[in-house]
Formats: sequence, C-alpha cells, structure tokens
Amino acid sequence: MTELFLLQDIVKRSLTEDLVYGDRTTETLFPRAIPAIGEIIAKEDLVVAGLDLCQTVFDVLAPSVQFEILIPPGKNAKPGEKIGILRGDARALLKGERTALNFIQRLSGIATHTRRFVDRANGVKIVDTRKTTPGLRALEKEAVILGGGYNHRFHLGDLILIKDNHIVLAGGIINAVTKTRVTLSHPLKVEVEVKNLKEVEDAIQSGADIIMLDNMTIPQIEEAVLLIRNKSPKIPIEVSGGINLNNVASVAKCGIDMISIGSLTHSAPAVDISLEIVHDK
Amino acid sequence: MTELFLLQDIVKRSLTEDLVYGDRTTETLFPRAIPAIGEIIAKEDLVVAGLDLCQTVFDVLAPSVQFEILIPPGKNAKPGEKIGILRGDARALLKGERTALNFIQRLSGIATHTRRFVDRANGVKIVDTRKTTPGLRALEKEAVILGGGYNHRFHLGDLILIKDNHIVLAGGIINAVTKTRVTLSHPLKVEVEVKNLKEVEDAIQSGADIIMLDNMTIPQIEEAVLLIRNKSPKIPIEVSGGINLNNVASVAKCGIDMISIGSLTHSAPAVDISLEIVHDK
Amino acid sequence: MTELFLLQDIVKRSLTEDLVYGDRTTETLFPRAIPAIGEIIAKEDLVVAGLDLCQTVFDVLAPSVQFEILIPPGKNAKPGEKIGILRGDARALLKGERTALNFIQRLSGIATHTRRFVDRANGVKIVDTRKTTPGLRALEKEAVILGGGYNHRFHLGDLILIKDNHIVLAGGIINAVTKTRVTLSHPLKVEVEVKNLKEVEDAIQSGADIIMLDNMTIPQIEEAVLLIRNKSPKIPIEVSGGINLNNVASVAKCGIDMISIGSLTHSAPAVDISLEIVHDK
Amino acid sequence: MTELFLLQDIVKRSLTEDLVYGDRTTETLFPRAIPAIGEIIAKEDLVVAGLDLCQTVFDVLAPSVQFEILIPPGKNAKPGEKIGILRGDARALLKGERTALNFIQRLSGIATHTRRFVDRANGVKIVDTRKTTPGLRALEKEAVILGGGYNHRFHLGDLILIKDNHIVLAGGIINAVTKTRVTLSHPLKVEVEVKNLKEVEDAIQSGADIIMLDNMTIPQIEEAVLLIRNKSPKIPIEVSGGINLNNVASVAKCGIDMISIGSLTHSAPAVDISLEIVHDK
Amino acid sequence: MTELFLLQDIVKRSLTEDLVYGDRTTETLFPRAIPAIGEIIAKEDLVVAGLDLCQTVFDVLAPSVQFEILIPPGKNAKPGEKIGILRGDARALLKGERTALNFIQRLSGIATHTRRFVDRANGVKIVDTRKTTPGLRALEKEAVILGGGYNHRFHLGDLILIKDNHIVLAGGIINAVTKTRVTLSHPLKVEVEVKNLKEVEDAIQSGADIIMLDNMTIPQIEEAVLLIRNKSPKIPIEVSGGINLNNVASVAKCGIDMISIGSLTHSAPAVDISLEIVHDK
Amino acid sequence: MTELFLLQDIVKRSLTEDLVYGDRTTETLFPRAIPAIGEIIAKEDLVVAGLDLCQTVFDVLAPSVQFEILIPPGKNAKPGEKIGILRGDARALLKGERTALNFIQRLSGIATHTRRFVDRANGVKIVDTRKTTPGLRALEKEAVILGGGYNHRFHLGDLILIKDNHIVLAGGIINAVTKTRVTLSHPLKVEVEVKNLKEVEDAIQSGADIIMLDNMTIPQIEEAVLLIRNKSPKIPIEVSGGINLNNVASVAKCGIDMISIGSLTHSAPAVDISLEIVHDK
Repeated sequence: MTELFLLQDIVKRSLTEDLVYGDRTTETLFPRAIPAIGEIIAKEDLVVAGLDLCQTVFDVLAPSVQFEILIPPGKNAKPGEKIGILRGDARALLKGERTALNFIQRLSGIATHTRRFVDRANGVKIVDTRKTTPGLRALEKEAVILGGGYNHRFHLGDLILIKDNHIVLAGGIINAVTKTRVTLSHPLKVEVEVKNLKEVEDAIQSGADIIMLDNMTIPQIEEAVLLIRNKSPKIPIEVSGGINLNNVASVAKCGIDMISIGSLTHSAPAVDISLEIVHDK
Repeated sequence: MTELFLLQDIVKRSLTEDLVYGDRTTETLFPRAIPAIGEIIAKEDLVVAGLDLCQTVFDVLAPSVQFEILIPPGKNAKPGEKIGILRGDARALLKGERTALNFIQRLSGIATHTRRFVDRANGVKIVDTRKTTPGLRALEKEAVILGGGYNHRFHLGDLILIKDNHIVLAGGIINAVTKTRVTLSHPLKVEVEVKNLKEVEDAIQSGADIIMLDNMTIPQIEEAVLLIRNKSPKIPIEVSGGINLNNVASVAKCGIDMISIGSLTHSAPAVDISLEIVHDK
Repeated sequence: MTELFLLQDIVKRSLTEDLVYGDRTTETLFPRAIPAIGEIIAKEDLVVAGLDLCQTVFDVLAPSVQFEILIPPGKNAKPGEKIGILRGDARALLKGERTALNFIQRLSGIATHTRRFVDRANGVKIVDTRKTTPGLRALEKEAVILGGGYNHRFHLGDLILIKDNHIVLAGGIINAVTKTRVTLSHPLKVEVEVKNLKEVEDAIQSGADIIMLDNMTIPQIEEAVLLIRNKSPKIPIEVSGGINLNNVASVAKCGIDMISIGSLTHSAPAVDISLEIVHDK
Repeated sequence: MTELFLLQDIVKRSLTEDLVYGDRTTETLFPRAIPAIGEIIAKEDLVVAGLDLCQTVFDVLAPSVQFEILIPPGKNAKPGEKIGILRGDARALLKGERTALNFIQRLSGIATHTRRFVDRANGVKIVDTRKTTPGLRALEKEAVILGGGYNHRFHLGDLILIKDNHIVLAGGIINAVTKTRVTLSHPLKVEVEVKNLKEVEDAIQSGADIIMLDNMTIPQIEEAVLLIRNKSPKIPIEVSGGINLNNVASVAKCGIDMISIGSLTHSAPAVDISLEIVHDK
Repeated sequence: MTELFLLQDIVKRSLTEDLVYGDRTTETLFPRAIPAIGEIIAKEDLVVAGLDLCQTVFDVLAPSVQFEILIPPGKNAKPGEKIGILRGDARALLKGERTALNFIQRLSGIATHTRRFVDRANGVKIVDTRKTTPGLRALEKEAVILGGGYNHRFHLGDLILIKDNHIVLAGGIINAVTKTRVTLSHPLKVEVEVKNLKEVEDAIQSGADIIMLDNMTIPQIEEAVLLIRNKSPKIPIEVSGGINLNNVASVAKCGIDMISIGSLTHSAPAVDISLEIVHDK
Repeated sequence: MTELFLLQDIVKRSLTEDLVYGDRTTETLFPRAIPAIGEIIAKEDLVVAGLDLCQTVFDVLAPSVQFEILIPPGKNAKPGEKIGILRGDARALLKGERTALNFIQRLSGIATHTRRFVDRANGVKIVDTRKTTPGLRALEKEAVILGGGYNHRFHLGDLILIKDNHIVLAGGIINAVTKTRVTLSHPLKVEVEVKNLKEVEDAIQSGADIIMLDNMTIPQIEEAVLLIRNKSPKIPIEVSGGINLNNVASVAKCGIDMISIGSLTHSAPAVDISLEIVHDK
C-alpha cells in the first residue's frame, strides 16, 4: 500500500502535466464557482482500482471537493454503473478530470486484466513482475492485488533472483547460489531462474529457496516439476515467460505454485470510463 | 522533444524504484567489474522509440557505459534485429536493464501502435490525446510522432478546447466561443467539440478555429463535413471517439483532416524486447 | 491561474530563503504566542496583485493565521488604504512578513505598471512577453492580466513564433512558415516577426496567422499596416520593441491589434507597501 | 557566492518554464544541428553580472556549447560591446537564449543600479536589504557586490535585527536588546532600528552593536549621529528608508557608515541586452 | 527553530526509507483500523527532545492520530515515565513507530549529552559545532539548546571564522582579519582560531571580535586568557578541542566565556525509548 | 550499495546546510584559486568507511578536485595514517571539508563500532537494525557491512517481521503467521519476535522462517535454543535486545545464528579524523 504522502508527489507531477500554465478554457469560461456533480461511470465490465489516486487528485487540487465511492476497489463494475461521485466546484472537476481518469482507467485496466488471468488459473497464484510503468510501480502492483493477483519482488533489493545473465557471468547456478548464501544474512530468499532440465537439477542441488521455470513448453514444465517434487516436495515453483489468456489454464495444471506475467502491468488495456458533470441544483 | 535535463529527473525516479536499496543479487555475485556487451534485440516487428531514455538511464547510472544505436528512433525493427548495443561493466547493465527496457518497450509500443493507425489512415492525420500515462506525457507524445502521428494539445493551457461539459455549463457553444474571443489574446486557437448537427451549426456560426466531431457514426460524420465545408471550406475538422484499427480507414475517407485516438497512448501493448548480456572479450 | 499546489512550492522556496535557520530575533524575543493584527497598507497608488501568494505564505507557515482581503486583486488602492488584514500569532506575522511583502510589492508593481500602459493604449491590447523573472513566469503573467493586459505565449511550446534568428537560419520567412505548416498538427498558430516591408510581404505571402512588427518607427508601422490590411484584413498585427509610456499612445493609433512590452515584467518598479503589526486586544 | 550545484537547481526551474514541452519552433525548423555563434551584446551602459547563470544555462541544457566571457562580472560594458560569445548548435542557443538573457538583464540591472548609488555615496557603504525577488536572493545579493555595494543580512538567522514591530511587542529597545544578550551565544551581532532621538538614546544605552536610523530627515540624521558619536564613537551607523539617486549624496555626508536601499534589488530596471545568432562558418 | 514546513520534508524522506513499498507486515495482518494507544516511555534518565518531529511524523503519515505531550521538550524524564501518548489507528502507529523513535532517541540523546556538560561547566557556555549529522543540522542544534547549550554558527555564511588552514594560506592572522574588515559590511563578526601564544597576540592585535583557543592545555589556556584579558577585557574567549565530560569542569574554571564541543552532536549516544501499543478500549 | 545518483542528492542537501549562502570566510580571504593538497588523517584506530561520500562531496562541489584513496573502505587505519588525499583548489577543499568529514567520521564510526562486536562474536553474525539515522539508512547499513556485520531488513516491505505489538493486536503468533502465509506470495520470509518460551513454542509451531529471541537472559536463550533446535534444527535463530560489547561474547556462545544490535547505528561514536590543507607546490 502506498502511503498518502507518497501518492501526493505522484499526483502533483501528473496534475502539473496538465495545469503547468492553468486550464485556460475553464478559467476563461467560468470566472465564478459552479456547484456541480461529477459521476464516474464504467463504460465496460471492469475491476475497480485507482480510487485512492482520484481522491488524492482532488485533495491536492481542491480539498473542498467531496468524493464518494460507490463501488470499492477490487469489486466489479458493469457498463453504466457509477463507480463514484464527485461533488464540488465544476471548475475543479474539469481541471482534475483527465488526471483522475488517467489513473483510474490505467489501474482498473491492470486489475481487470489480472482478474481475467486469475479466473483461468484454477487456484495457481498469478504474480506480477518488475515490467511496470516507470514511476508507477507501487501503484500498479497494488492494482494487481485488487485483481486477485500476488506480488513478486518490488525492487532489486528484496529478493535474490539469479537470472540467465547472472548465471552465465557467475559460472553456473551452484556457484552463484553458494556465493549468496555465504555473503548474505538471513532476511532474503534466493530464487533461481532455469531454462532447461540441467539447470533445474543444478537449482535443486544449489539449495535455492524458489525455482522459476523460464520460457519452457508445457511438457518441459511437467518434466521439471516431476524432477523438483521428487527431491524437494515443498519448494515453490514459478513459471514465467510467454503466458497469455489462451495458455494460462493449461500451464496452471502443471502442478506449479505460481505464474508470473509481465503483461499484467505492461500491456493491460485501459478500461473505458467517463466523467459526466452536471449542475448540482 | 524533452530536453535531457528533464529526462534525467524521470529516469532517476524510475531507477530509484529498482535501486532504492541496491541490486543485491548483482552486488553479491560480482564484487568486481566485468567488461560486457549488452544487445537490445527486437523480438517482434516494431517501430523504435525510447532510445534517449535508455541512453539517459546509463548516463545517470554509469556514465562509462557506451550506447550505440543501430536502428534509430522512428525506424522499423524486425524480430531478431539488434536495436542497439551497450558496452561497459556488466553490473551496470544488470542494474539498468529493467528500467531501460521498461521505457523502450512502452514507448516503442506506442510508436508501433500509432504506425498501424497511420498506415490505414490514407493520409488523414492521426493525432494523440491527453489520455497519457501520468508522469510520461511528453515522452509518449514524442513516441506518437515517431510512429508517424501528430500531437494534439499538450496541456490545458495551449489550446482552448470547449467540450461537452463546458458547453452545458456555459449555456451553449456560441456563448462559450464568444466569451473566449473577448477574453483572450491572440496566441491560442479555439476548438469546439460537437456531438450532433445542431452543434455543428452552432460551432460554424461561433467562428471556432477547429471543429471536433465527437462519437459520431460515419453517416453523421459525412453529413457534418458537408455542412462545414459548405460554409467554411478551410476549417480543420477532427474526428474523435471510438476509433480503432478496424474502422479507422472508413472514417479517414469522410473528408476530414485528422482523427484523434486515445488508445495510442493508453492502450498500446508493450513490444517484446530483450537485453542479452555477454562477456566482452 | 496557478493552482494552489504549485504556488506552495514557490512559496516554500522563498520562505526557506529567510527561515532556513529560523528567525532568531523573533524566537529570542517572544517565547510565547502573541495575538496580533497585521495591516497591509498601500503607501502609493497601485493595482493590487499577489494576494494569493500572501495567503499561501501563511498557509504554509502558520495555517492558523487568518487573512482577510479588503481590496481584491485587480482593483486600485490609494496611499494609506488597507489592502488586507492578517490575524494571528505575531511571531508568524513577523516571520512571513518579508516574504509576503516581496511577492505583493513585485506583482502589484507589474499590475500597476501594466495598467499605466493600458490606460494610454486606447483599446489596443497590451501584451506581455517571456522576459519574466526566472521562476515566477506564471505569477507575473497573471499580474499582467490583473493590470488589464493580455498574455502572449507562456513557453516555447504553445505558439510557433518565427523570429529574426530563426529566419536567418531557416533561409527566409516563406521557407520557415511552410515547413511548420507541413510538420505540425492543428493546435498551434504560427506568428512571424518582421523588421521591414520586404519581410512584411513575405509574411503575408507565407500565410502566417499573426504578424509582429519588430522595432519599427511609427511611419514604418503605418506603412506595414496598410500593406497587411490591403491583403489580409483580419490578420492580427502585433507591434513590439522599444515601447514605453511616452510613445505607447502614438503607436496605439496605427491601426494595430496589440502591443507587446517586455518592461511590463522585467522593469516594473516594486510598489511601496507596509505591514503594521499591533497587539490584538 | 552561490555554488554551481545550487545554481543548477535555479536554472533548471527557469529552463523548465520555457521548455516544459520543448521549443516547437526550433525543433520544427531545424531537425539537424547548425554550428553557430551567439554574441551577447550590451545595448546600453551597464555593469556586467549574471554570467555564471548564463554559463549554467548552457551547462544544463547543452554541455557542448562553449561560453567565452569578454567582459568579466563587475566591469562596465558600453552600448554595442560584446559581453560574451556562445559557440555551439544554434538550436541550443535558441532554446536557452531567453532564460540566459532573463538572468543577465536582471542581475546586470541590479549591479548597474547599485553602481549608480555607489558613485554618489562618497565612500559611504551602499548596502542591500532582504527586499529581493523570491527565489533569487543569493544571486541578487551577489549582483549588489558586483555593483560595488555590500550585503546586509541574508536571512533571519544571521543577525539579530530589532525593528519597529519587535520594539512595540517587546516593550521597548532596552528590554529587547537585554533579552537577546542573555539568550544568545556569541556569533551574532545585535542591530536596532530607531525612528527618533528617544529611541537613539535607548539604543545607545542598550549596548546594541549597530544602530539603524530609519526614515529620518537629514537634520534628524545629523542630530542622531552627533548623539551616537558622543557616546559610542565606533558603533556603526546605518541609514535606511526613502533613499534614492537624488538624495543619496546628501545623506552620505551625514557622518554615517552605510546606507541600505531596498530598490537595489526590488526596483532595478533590467538592462537592455541582445543575443545575435549567426552561422559559424 | 525549524519551521513545520521544513520539518515535513525531512520527515517525508525518513518515512520513505521505511515505507517506500509499504509496511507489509502491518497491512497483511490488519486489513481494518484498530483503535489504539501508544505510550512513548523513557527507559533511562534523559532530557526530552524531538517531539516536534514525532508530531510531524504522524501529521504526514496519518493526520487523525492525536499526540499528547506529557513531558515537554527540555525537561527531564526518568526511567518508566511516559513522555507522550499517541492515539489513533494502530496501523499508523506501527508504521510511524520506528521513524518517530529514531528522531526522538537521537535528539534526546543530544539534549541529554549536552545537559551533562552544562551541569559540569559552572556557568561557562557550552556551545555546539558544525560537526552535525548530514541533513539534520538545524534539528541537532535545537536539541543542544534544549539541553542548555548554545549555538555556534549554523553555516559558512553567518560568522567569519578564520581557522588554521585559512591562516596558513592567507599569510597570518593579521593579514586575514584585515582583509575581512576591508571587504565585508557590518553584519558579521570575525572570530579567529589560535593554537599558541604567538597567535593569541596576533589575534588581539588584529582586532578580531572573538578568539578561540584551539587544542590548548589548561596552563596554555590560562596564560592565553591572562594575555587577552590584559588588553581586551571584554572580548569573548572560546575554548575548543578535546573537551570531554572528565575535563570540562577544569577548563571551565580558566576564566573563559564558552567551550565548544563536537561530541555534543557527533557522538551523543541515543537514549533508550520505547513505544508500547495497546488496544484503545 | 547506494548508487552514485542517490548519493548526490544526500550530499547536495548536506552541502547546502553549510553553503546555502556561501563560505564567506574563504571567499573573502581568497579571491583566486590556490593549488592545494588536503590529507585526510586518522587520529585514532578505526575502520574506514564513507569515502564514496567524500568523493561525491567534491564531485558535486568542484569536479576538478582529485581524490586518491590510500586506505580502502573496510580496512583499518592507525592514528596518524593518511586515509586519502585531495588535490585541487584550496577554496573547494575548505568549503567541502566539514561535510566530507562529517560523513567519514560518522560512517567510519559505525564500521569501527561494528568491527568491535564482530571481533568478539566468535563467528556469530552481527546484524544491524532499522534504528538508523533519519535520511542515512542505506549509507549506515553499508558501513555495517564494511565493519564485518550483516544487514537485517532495510524497510518495512522486505521481510515480514511480527513483533510484540503485532502479536498482541493479531491475537497470537500462530494466528499472525498463518494469516501472512495465506495472503502473501512467495518472495518474503516471515520472522517472529518472541520474548518467552511459550512464544518460542508458538513460533516453532507457526512455521515461521526465522525466530528472534528478544530481551532474554542468557539462560533463557539457552533454553529457547534447545527447544528450537530440537524441532527445527535449521531455522535461523536471532538474538536481540540489550547486547553490548561486554555481553556479546557470552551471548554468541549460546548456539544462535545472529545477534542484532541497534547501537551499531544509533550510538556509534564518531571517529576522530582531520583534514590538513597545505599549498601544493
């Protein structure tokens, strides 16, 4: 969860993109405040996310605007349903509209996209990656949670993850894992990414805490799982690489613990949402 | 074009998301520098963008890393082609890899998505919107240019754009346009968004500089164009709302000047790109 | 209009100039709060501006201070008249006094200086330039509006303005304007700066949206206006360069639309304002 | 002297005012670099200041631009004389021109204005105040030095200055000075502002380190000086309030040590400077 | 005193160190708010400081948390005594706990350490130095005051202090002091650091405002004091270098005015403080 | 390891504390550059740390200054030994001296203090805590490593650590651990803090990954270790609370894996280091 004071910095930068020199249309047309209501309406099926950003947009821009949430984060909205209602000066609603919607449509897009994977994964955990939008990582990872997914590591310091490039440069998996065990203290787990059965065997022997099967076919995954479970029944197994809505269900049946998917955050289409502003009479 | 000193701020924030407490895998495994080459490789057909961000990532993180561009921004890359090569300490490449790729895959995604619309638009201009990623607006609008598109306004101060919500609150199009003409000085144009033929007539009468036809069917667009061209042969006509790769060609045949499309920036899927790091011997 | 959250950043930087290590006089003399009233008083004829900055100074420094505006922005104050009243702890008033007055005296100075030009311009628009104080552009342009003036462009991205240096480097006015028409989309106008009649003819022929007559004598201006109006009756004509309170009236009679004046922002003398603090009994 | 790393922050904020969304004129006209020379030319008599800011503008914007100083800070420039020469890509010169000139014209304006006072002051020190432009205090105080003036305190923590408002609230000068003596350690001097002979006597008795005669007539000043010199021959005497180029010489003859003048920084007119850019062949 | 708006920046940076990616323990365990009371308890004898930082931590993090101060800054707390009470959502208390305690334990440590010196100094002023924690100077100097000490200069601009390295490079004390007298205006005092009797004589002759005896033995100090008092009975004499709790009393008896001690800020041990959180029933 | 671009921000804030209004002593005395050498000399036995900060201080302040390291980080220096040499303009050395030394003396103090614990710990890991200086956490944790210690978690998101306050509010250890297992994905370990044998049993039963024995006596620790090792021979056991240089050796003999000690960072005394500057002839 991103604390409010950190959201405010992100929101200020975003509002500045629009308001660096004011909203000259709104300011020209409306010299005086106009009491108004703004309804945030879903235009397609979606999972709600980003409402804390919408709240923060108006906290920063015009604290007198009231925001009432009608469908809370993580819940479904159907086309035409109102997600929330803003009440206050129409000028503030017009100035903050685009920024607020840009956050909601992107984050709800991620939550919605994640939910589609979760619904097909038969209980296997759907996990995000670090393939996030620059500047929005924490927000996008929270949207994954709202969609029913789980978070992989947040940064390069909260898990040792030994990937293909590390393995080549370090002279193999066993060398690499051993080195981390000697050097590090207790708080961090060690995960190893493997791409074939030879590497699976090395990973098992190395004593890694987690094994990630990267870019394998389903038969390869099945063989790898067999190998791992034979020696380490409890070690978590992650699958990664090339997973989409068409193949996720098949992969999920391979006896694995989780599937990590970059597209949750890097290619989730924005959902369609509108803000309709009317006089508040 | 975003100046280098502004890119650096964006890049620093993004790198911080990964490196706030260091890259403990890389630092643990490699206590000493390793001369290395990193190849940035396209894994699908794409239009290149974001290389200035990649350059800036390594300028910020490790100025000794050299970045050679093989396929310049705005050009096509085919699967397997090398877009650029990084040379320097493998540890710097590993630390900056994800941030650099996150920028390239997103911005190339936008350029690629834009190019697909441009290729179908028969010379009608494809134009972006303000539906951009919070914090990345200027970068995304530059990616639209690289894809062959054009930029609509950047913020709420560089064009008067009178939209549906403004029209309702201001008591009609003619009132609104007149008010802006009286109040403002010369530098800004006035564009009006219209959603039916009555509003088209008002917009023509109001003396707006640009007319945007919002969410109309193709027959409505054709009728509106006829009406406008009859009275104002030179006024630019923009179409907006619900345009996708399936219908863009038909809309482009309606005698209009430009088509603005939110999905260029809010729903362009990331392209698939990898960084392969090897010893530099 | 600059939104409050942007004003706060400017105000914090300014307050820090004074308070980086506290106000040691006030803190030493007054260990406890003292209820006080501070009257902001005009010491000369002036047009009021900058009160939003004064409000923000105390919002940032001591939110419990109340600020009552007696003469609103854009209105005249006579010597001895109270512009506003602050109520709260004398220590906060003493700490914020200089910063608040520095904003008010500068911005009111600009509004007052602008008003003097407007009063002589016989209805021709008085327009500002980008010759503003580094860091205060948006605030100073708002003060120009309060003085009755109009805003020229705010930055290098909201109007194409082809100036002498561009013309030389681009190979002439017609080349330059043509190039911008081909490259740019619709939102931006194109203005050309011309310094002789040959360039006036080129500018007309180029199809520029606005023509600026730069550093011309009154007879040259009259001749240029005749030439322009003959071919383009409606194109806005701007005059710039060397305009002062002595010659503005004569220039304004030349049949032009607006006069842009750098001194509005770069050489407006500060107005004389004082803050008198007394016990609030 | 403001260190370079602090200048960079100020310069970045100022450049952002112009370049937040790029320089669309320059970028549209000139897709490729153009070797160019830019001459910074005085258009009136002036004292040079602000060249470190000009240097920093191009260090931030385009480090490859070379800046050669022809007339160093603090020296006089005559109309037509070249102050400095920039060499590099014309596009960088065009983008940085306005920001660089805005700094030079303002700071040279302050140095020039200060010099005029110094030339009339017959050796009495001309001293600045805290009536500086928000955000530019350190720079403006350095320009005062370049003009031959001296700096009063920089902030509210580097001198105890007991002013009229403090005196009223603290119950008199003697109370106030005594209190600061008891409370503070050694590094700070204590100055008292007095407005009549009674207060002069109190200030002498209080043991203040410096006495400021505020808003007195010349006869009052003379009488106060006599009184002070009679008892404390060496205490520095400052005069403040209502000093201008017409009366400064008369005040300077009153046997005082320094004259502080707000207009040095708050009302110095900008000097006229131009940048002429030509192809570098 | 550091104003609240400056404290907030420091506090935000500190909170970010803990909360950059949330408090995953607390958020996982407690999905809903829990009314709670948190008691800040002294675990050893100490002088209270840092409560304004504790207040600011919760103002930034969770404004609904109430903070009641039981033992005000500058007062003693005994083991087991409650310094203050926090009331609000347990989740906010848990998230802010470490940051708040880190401030209190460090600043109270400085106040406590200072008090120990003050108690042995027999009325001679105990003064801090610039040997402070990077980023926390103003806060630590305020803690020194709370402990009964006094502040030496805050930065390199509020006192001329000519130290050993300056003396060598400037060609002696008399040269150096003379140069500062000619160049500077009135607000700053000039202090000279001397390390032997020859330099003491130079310092007296130079007319310095303050003399600091650096790293002298007690007999040397006594001789220096005799020499100084003989010629300048009122000049403040500071002793510095190698002062600790064992020798401070002896040094204080040498007839000097103040003793400056780096360890007040650079080596004060943190005091032991705990926060106990219980349900608020 | 903290990347250079992050160090720069910390260093800029620290330098600003000293140089916000320049170094008026140095600037007044030395109008021209003076080639100089500055030797950083240990005045007591210490473990070197903080040299990257020293490097960054001069990179930020005066890039032409050269810094040669003679004793690398993590190594011992004896009294009188030179740690490093700075070469460049004496004015830059004087301006950066205090900031550079403040970093080195504090971080070397932490490394030195840690080393003392490590030397007594008989191979048991000495581990830091989050009781770090606000704003300097990453730097201080790196100094612990240089002293031979290990890092506990960096922030509230890289390890689930269930402490006394969590246990009370969550209804016991087993409830708490179970809840985290259900909710979280794979990357994070779960550590439990226990204070008596009943809680030890709960912690074992809960399946926690690490057990921390908090504030126990040595006999209690021995009993707890027996209990744990009996059921979970490999689970890491941490001891925390009240460990000092006198008792660390005894605690280390109890069969545990690591000892975490707050005083490593919150109460390490600064080491004594000086910078001696001489002409470079």
